Amino acid sequence: MLVVQKYGGSSLADSERMRHVAKVITDTYKRGADVVVVLSAQGDTTDELEAKALELNPKPSRREMDALLSCGESISIALMAMAIEAAGCPAISLTGRQAGISTDSSHTNARIKRIDTERMRRELEKRHIVLVAGFQGVNRFDDVTTLGRGGSNTSAVAVAAALGADLCQNFTDVDGVYTADPRIVPSARKLAEITYDEMLELASLGANVLQNRSVEMAKRFNVPLEVLSSFTPDVPGTLVKEMLTVENIQVSGVARDNNTARLSLVRLQDKPGVAAKVFSLLAREKINVDIILQSIGRDDTKDISFTVGAKCLDRAREVLTENREAIGFSELLIADNISKVSAVGAGMVNNPGVAARMFEALSAAGINIQMISTSEIKVSVLVDREDSDRAVRVIHEAFFG
Amino acid sequence: MLVVQKYGGSSLADSERMRHVAKVITDTYKRGADVVVVLSAQGDTTDELEAKALELNPKPSRREMDALLSCGESISIALMAMAIEAAGCPAISLTGRQAGISTDSSHTNARIKRIDTERMRRELEKRHIVLVAGFQGVNRFDDVTTLGRGGSNTSAVAVAAALGADLCQNFTDVDGVYTADPRIVPSARKLAEITYDEMLELASLGANVLQNRSVEMAKRFNVPLEVLSSFTPDVPGTLVKEMLTVENIQVSGVARDNNTARLSLVRLQDKPGVAAKVFSLLAREKINVDIILQSIGRDDTKDISFTVGAKCLDRAREVLTENREAIGFSELLIADNISKVSAVGAGMVNNPGVAARMFEALSAAGINIQMISTSEIKVSVLVDREDSDRAVRVIHEAFFG
Repeated sequence: MLVVQKYGGSSLADSERMRHVAKVITDTYKRGADVVVVLSAQGDTTDELEAKALELNPKPSRREMDALLSCGESISIALMAMAIEAAGCPAISLTGRQAGISTDSSHTNARIKRIDTERMRRELEKRHIVLVAGFQGVNRFDDVTTLGRGGSNTSAVAVAAALGADLCQNFTDVDGVYTADPRIVPSARKLAEITYDEMLELASLGANVLQNRSVEMAKRFNVPLEVLSSFTPDVPGTLVKEMLTVENIQVSGVARDNNTARLSLVRLQDKPGVAAKVFSLLAREKINVDIILQSIGRDDTKDISFTVGAKCLDRAREVLTENREAIGFSELLIADNISKVSAVGAGMVNNPGVAARMFEALSAAGINIQMISTSEIKVSVLVDREDSDRAVRVIHEAFFG
Repeated sequence: MLVVQKYGGSSLADSERMRHVAKVITDTYKRGADVVVVLSAQGDTTDELEAKALELNPKPSRREMDALLSCGESISIALMAMAIEAAGCPAISLTGRQAGISTDSSHTNARIKRIDTERMRRELEKRHIVLVAGFQGVNRFDDVTTLGRGGSNTSAVAVAAALGADLCQNFTDVDGVYTADPRIVPSARKLAEITYDEMLELASLGANVLQNRSVEMAKRFNVPLEVLSSFTPDVPGTLVKEMLTVENIQVSGVARDNNTARLSLVRLQDKPGVAAKVFSLLAREKINVDIILQSIGRDDTKDISFTVGAKCLDRAREVLTENREAIGFSELLIADNISKVSAVGAGMVNNPGVAARMFEALSAAGINIQMISTSEIKVSVLVDREDSDRAVRVIHEAFFG
């Protein structure tokens, strides 16, 4: 049995937590498993290093930023190796490079290209607990790269895939994936299992458990992924895996995402190519557009509304305003006080009533739906942010109540 | 002109000092020189990392300690690259491994075996300022090693030797090598030049400017070494180099070392092999013995006195006491309140009167000499610690007054 475990920064914040994590690791090892551990930087280390950098240079080169920030993870693995040795088990720390993680050269947002597992395997054969620095790799110029936000999750899944691990355990500060955020819906239930696709929808919809990139990779390489808490390591978490027979469950969870804003272009000319112009302008600025809604044409004009991540709102507004003439619209409306609420479930595709049931629940609660978006495994609606908690609750009640 | 500069941790302690050092570096670069810079860890970083380690494991493995502590230098070079870029010059940071520094596998005290300069030369050809992490290298297993105390000085000299640099500038918090410690002898003068051998004697005698190892390496590869202050970079420091014609100066400096203790074995049997037994016992414990004095035998017994570093005193005492029977002595006397005061000068070998002049000066001041040791370029005496400041002053007065 080969297990890859990943611990985030908050699980490593101080010596006491480090020792606690060391115990969780050595307990796994003592049960006979081969253990590879991927670690993030401790607590606020990354933020502190970044602040130091910006104090010296408001626009540091991305190569040097990678060289700097990767030190946080390198420190974590060496300290954890010491904590594990103090607990009486053999351990060895490996940087991304030593673990054989090759990436492309997109500094601060690199993609893993290949993992040469030779060194990791050699250490595992010696029955060492192998501690791998998350978030980092090395490009073909022998320079350190980092994988961007949530990079340690990606490292963990990639290492698990490369080693053919039986399980990749992602230890976080929540003990699994819930049918809704328990802070909003106290009756929310923890899911024992969930498919990769459902997890992808839930992650992108603001259920902040796993990053999309790591789930996509887990899906591609069929790595079973468990989300569980480092504070209660013996409580089973949620297992993310491919399920051949979709269960009877129509909806597996309700998610809410506040990180969204809506833009509406009013009275666009209703002719071919207008939408293409708008969205290619945004794409050129690397602004990700989420839900798009286009009205039926009337009086030779139409309206296009779409949502973007809240962070991109200002840039999107700029780009559109600058190109007002070229695009040809009469007004740009902005709504930034909105939320996206979604019901996700692999069973949905065979249950056409899901969307209707969701809309009814919202309607009964007097919550106005601003936009709707659906896919095979989710239904998302845009509502006023002040209604969003209530929306999550009534939808959850409709499916799980 | 290729210059290697080395900056210690106190010159890098905060953003303000980092910016100041960045300016010293870019000024050198703008004058047209190719510049390679070797950096230590910032301020107390190394101590802080070490404290974290010891909190988790009082006896951490040396491999992991190297992996951990080397991060301090890696952080320095990335930050300095950013500071230099902010000052408008191109820079690139290279870890010990990236700079091609191969060492043996003695973790925490590794020796440099080879430097592959290919990457550094390539970056210099692009007119990059090359920032190399001091103190660290990599062994043949691809694991990070560190070079021990003062390792960054060693890195700097080794890099200068490998690149055939015209000059290796060691920026410290003193602006050169003085004829005596200016805190003890206010009239002490800064030396414009000094030979490697003189510097070696002064360094080992407690003039804390350069580590022996780096001076030895500079001598072996004939690297001109300048000691100067990062606070007054335009004031010429002291140049350490080989001088073919030894100048007229008999004595180049007076040093004082408080880090010493004397042990005396009283009434040893006066037969062959006794001294060998004593010193091989100490050598086995890796205790370095400095001055040795053996009395002339009397009544079939003799006394042996010797000095060791203050840190080794307890272990030396233990070893000797445990082996009292085997060695055969009647009493072990300890003096730990002593200092070694030395006059150093390459001109001494041709001037037999130096020792006499030194002893006369001490005698006139009523200072008792406990032990004497001489070499071709130095005379050292052991005196009570309370007399040591006065001893430095009267000797300095005798030669430089």
